[in-house]
Amino acid sequence: MKISEKIADYIAKDKTFYSFEFFPPKTDFGTENLYSRIDRMASLHPAYIDVTWGAGGSTADKTLEMCKTIQKYFGLDVMMHLTCTNMGESSIKKILMEAKESDLSNILALRGDPPEGSLTWEKHAEGFRYGIDLVRYIRKEFGDDFFLGVGGYPDGHQEQTDINVDIKFLKEKVDAGSDIVITQLFYDIDKFFLFRDKCVKAGIKVPIIPGIMPIHNYARFLKFTQFCKVSIPNLISKQLESIKDDDSSVINYGVDQASEMGRVLIEEGVPGLHFYTLNLEHSVSEILRSLNLVSSQGIIKELPWRQSTLGDRKTAEDVRPIYWSNRTVSYLARTESWDDFPNGRWGDITSPTFGELNQYHAIRAGAKSDKVKAKRKKIWGEPKSIEDIKDVFVSFCKGEINCLPWCEMPLAHESQQISSSLINLNEMGFFTINSQPNVNGAPSEDAIVGWGGSGGRVYQKAYLEFFTSNDKLDTFLKNLKSTDNISYQAINIDGKLITNLSENSVMAVTWGVFPGKEIMQPTIVDTRSFLIWKDEAFGLWMNDWASIYDQESESFKILQEIYETYYLVNIVDNNYVDGGMMEQFFK
Amino acid sequence: MKISEKIADYIAKDKTFYSFEFFPPKTDFGTENLYSRIDRMASLHPAYIDVTWGAGGSTADKTLEMCKTIQKYFGLDVMMHLTCTNMGESSIKKILMEAKESDLSNILALRGDPPEGSLTWEKHAEGFRYGIDLVRYIRKEFGDDFFLGVGGYPDGHQEQTDINVDIKFLKEKVDAGSDIVITQLFYDIDKFFLFRDKCVKAGIKVPIIPGIMPIHNYARFLKFTQFCKVSIPNLISKQLESIKDDDSSVINYGVDQASEMGRVLIEEGVPGLHFYTLNLEHSVSEILRSLNLVSSQGIIKELPWRQSTLGDRKTAEDVRPIYWSNRTVSYLARTESWDDFPNGRWGDITSPTFGELNQYHAIRAGAKSDKVKAKRKKIWGEPKSIEDIKDVFVSFCKGEINCLPWCEMPLAHESQQISSSLINLNEMGFFTINSQPNVNGAPSEDAIVGWGGSGGRVYQKAYLEFFTSNDKLDTFLKNLKSTDNISYQAINIDGKLITNLSENSVMAVTWGVFPGKEIMQPTIVDTRSFLIWKDEAFGLWMNDWASIYDQESESFKILQEIYETYYLVNIVDNNYVDGGMMEQFFK
Repeated sequence: MKISEKIADYIAKDKTFYSFEFFPPKTDFGTENLYSRIDRMASLHPAYIDVTWGAGGSTADKTLEMCKTIQKYFGLDVMMHLTCTNMGESSIKKILMEAKESDLSNILALRGDPPEGSLTWEKHAEGFRYGIDLVRYIRKEFGDDFFLGVGGYPDGHQEQTDINVDIKFLKEKVDAGSDIVITQLFYDIDKFFLFRDKCVKAGIKVPIIPGIMPIHNYARFLKFTQFCKVSIPNLISKQLESIKDDDSSVINYGVDQASEMGRVLIEEGVPGLHFYTLNLEHSVSEILRSLNLVSSQGIIKELPWRQSTLGDRKTAEDVRPIYWSNRTVSYLARTESWDDFPNGRWGDITSPTFGELNQYHAIRAGAKSDKVKAKRKKIWGEPKSIEDIKDVFVSFCKGEINCLPWCEMPLAHESQQISSSLINLNEMGFFTINSQPNVNGAPSEDAIVGWGGSGGRVYQKAYLEFFTSNDKLDTFLKNLKSTDNISYQAINIDGKLITNLSENSVMAVTWGVFPGKEIMQPTIVDTRSFLIWKDEAFGLWMNDWASIYDQESESFKILQEIYETYYLVNIVDNNYVDGGMMEQFFK
Repeated sequence: MKISEKIADYIAKDKTFYSFEFFPPKTDFGTENLYSRIDRMASLHPAYIDVTWGAGGSTADKTLEMCKTIQKYFGLDVMMHLTCTNMGESSIKKILMEAKESDLSNILALRGDPPEGSLTWEKHAEGFRYGIDLVRYIRKEFGDDFFLGVGGYPDGHQEQTDINVDIKFLKEKVDAGSDIVITQLFYDIDKFFLFRDKCVKAGIKVPIIPGIMPIHNYARFLKFTQFCKVSIPNLISKQLESIKDDDSSVINYGVDQASEMGRVLIEEGVPGLHFYTLNLEHSVSEILRSLNLVSSQGIIKELPWRQSTLGDRKTAEDVRPIYWSNRTVSYLARTESWDDFPNGRWGDITSPTFGELNQYHAIRAGAKSDKVKAKRKKIWGEPKSIEDIKDVFVSFCKGEINCLPWCEMPLAHESQQISSSLINLNEMGFFTINSQPNVNGAPSEDAIVGWGGSGGRVYQKAYLEFFTSNDKLDTFLKNLKSTDNISYQAINIDGKLITNLSENSVMAVTWGVFPGKEIMQPTIVDTRSFLIWKDEAFGLWMNDWASIYDQESESFKILQEIYETYYLVNIVDNNYVDGGMMEQFFK
């Protein structure tokens, strides 16, 4: 989707937006890591994600693939870079066609850097000389199909140091059909304002977005500023010099410097900030927090889960089973072929394709590497008993480790409300993998549980999903009274099902009531997709966990025992008004 | 639908059921009146409705038509009588085929009375001699397609006075495939018990349902008992003799006598009571009340509106627009061709057939008769001014008159909660035709607003629909603040629309949350069907009201003025938790 309206809306509401720029990593392991990072950073609600074009066009396919994946699986808008370096007209056309077909509708059109190893930039025989040629070509061939950004150079261009000439060129690029200007990184804020003023004077009316690269590392900082010919204010040089050998001090300095710069830029009216993240997460998150741009307050989610931005799916899909709520990417990969959501419901749950995890495995391509195994061993240790397993689950609930095979993200903010109960449950041998507390008509603007826009009320039934032994399940079911108003489903690897739900039933566990609208019920518990989830959930014990150990090891054996004997259980407390499912559990 | 399961369910739950028997009236006016009566009596929740077969088969078409209409438009199960009188095998087969096609799956198979004018019964040349022949024929030709009832004679058969022989015949009829025995009317309860005991001894295991005809009128009582050769206990004769000239005393006596008989029958374990209503309403309602069989308490409605029993529609339809809630028959007639309810939603609202009222007019066939006009004049008077019109609406809200052109039934029980507000509104010139108060999570078992089964919670947004003048509408809209959280639609006869709802929007105004289920939202306000309702609602001013007066009369002119200048308005208070739409109105 073109981000034109989104940007216009931010500007109209005088709300500062921000975007994150990433580059395609070189290895599968790096790519998987970056996807996890982008997935987490999505919760910061960037307006869009930039993905750079490989210098010299070498990583073209990777860039396209990354853009598509981010858009499809992480529900974020994407602006894809495209450069003229080493590209003939026909290659560019092919890429633009593919981008268009894949709904990648935002392009940052650049001339590009010289290819690696070259010092000077040379035009491709059949290609374009300047960024403006690329802009003209896109507008000529594709009309208004794309939202187009171009680069701006507050510090002057590497190859054009007369700023007035440079701004004349920029004006021509904008006139040729650019929708936004994103600037090169800079540290001298006065140069940016001078640049902006000159742009305005020259009649450039599109938004001019400053590019910010937080200082992460002294050596890299020097390399970048030299490469881009970016000037460094004396004060910054002096301050950095004194701490240059202490990496964490440099990082903290970078956060403070960029935050201060951001504060002044916002004060002076820039509509947004563009962050060169260098594929790093920490600094940008800190800067946004210190600028008070991120807080769950004020950001209204359209639905409780993040929507895919993909055309049809975005507007048509409004219900998902709760089981995959901690494994969104897997759910989206499995349901990718669902282009049909009759009446906003999910597609064909009985479809034979709803078993394939190929696409997911392509995204999580690094999963089987030794590096990943080593990393996982570090997180989950080498459990030798059920007690050790308990410790892993308890650590996750305490926030001491940030993932489990079933949870790609740390414990959700809203489940933290019940984290002490969750810790107790895990200590009792109920290994929890998914949960939500009950909510009875909270305002839809609520910082933690709200969604769906303003003026509404949202509801949730308490939900808990865990693995437990046959014995513990028996005890739990025996103590369950009909008055408890609990719905449950339990199943083991062999498919033995114990439930009080009727076949093919569907129940809402999250719903909302809004002015002038139908009731929305975006999250459900349904008996049919539970059977599919069961295979995935059990599989993770072996594929994602046991597989990191030697097959003869105690760790492997204890995990295999759980896989073979435990039950996957989910329970819903139908009394969302004053139910006490958790209290019930401890009795 | 066959009532087998329903009856079995009543018996399993030890809940006494009851059924009402009607006969097809001779005139259109009588038929329309009877339909209104059945519509009202539906709220007593009979297990099914019996419709008699015309003596001699003369009213066969009428019986079939009535059965279909009751099932389709009033959402009641039907048992159709079928007799052998004057009917050849081929006619009977044709009727049974038609019944089957129309989902009329319950048949009371009788020999029938002699045709009018004859004293003795004679077998049709190609027909059947006894009820048992009809039962055998149906089972042979149609297998288990029908639920079959047969008659029983506690007082002995007119033509077979030896009760032992009669019971031997009955046993044969049951063995031939009857599912239930309904008895002839009787007043001597001991005879019924004797009959029942003998039946049981003879091995008759199907339910035996006593037939009760409340005494309405002395002369008619004598005529019936003589015709059916039914014995009258001395006490009843004596008591009736003393009050026979006072009609209302006779009616009251009939209610008391039948109530007492019903009480003893229930005590002695009969599973149900069958009422010969003689197309009358009062006595049966009173008897059921005095037996504590009817109270809104304990009767759980599946949905807030009465469902049609028609096959697909019953199971598939779960959403209706609120506009027609006081004109159900009209809604069902207009949407009759909708056999498709994708995902439980309504069918094609844009269908060209959603404008036709033909079927409705067939049901309300007496509407244009002078008798109806006279009746309406008596109810609505001859208004000469807006003040007079106000008085009519106010009288309706006060329960002084029991219908308006827009309201086929008296003010709904739940709207009575707000009746004093409604009276005020009408006095202020807002002529209300539909309303519901807000409900915030009331138990689904609630006697007045509950529906959908037990253990759930139900919700409503306050809704109000009225006609008012342009001036009053202006004032209302001017005083509306955005903080009021009110959705509104207003339209005049020319289609001038004033609304704050977006085009094609749909909002839930009644919904429910139940254990183990999706959220149900059976009543909606939607912008598209409002445009269709508007034509019907305005049309009623002229067709149902103005048309009863002379076109030159003041009454006609004042109604025409309203028709031409007023707005039809509906408003929804989105704040169902603590909204005060009514209070707001009076400020």
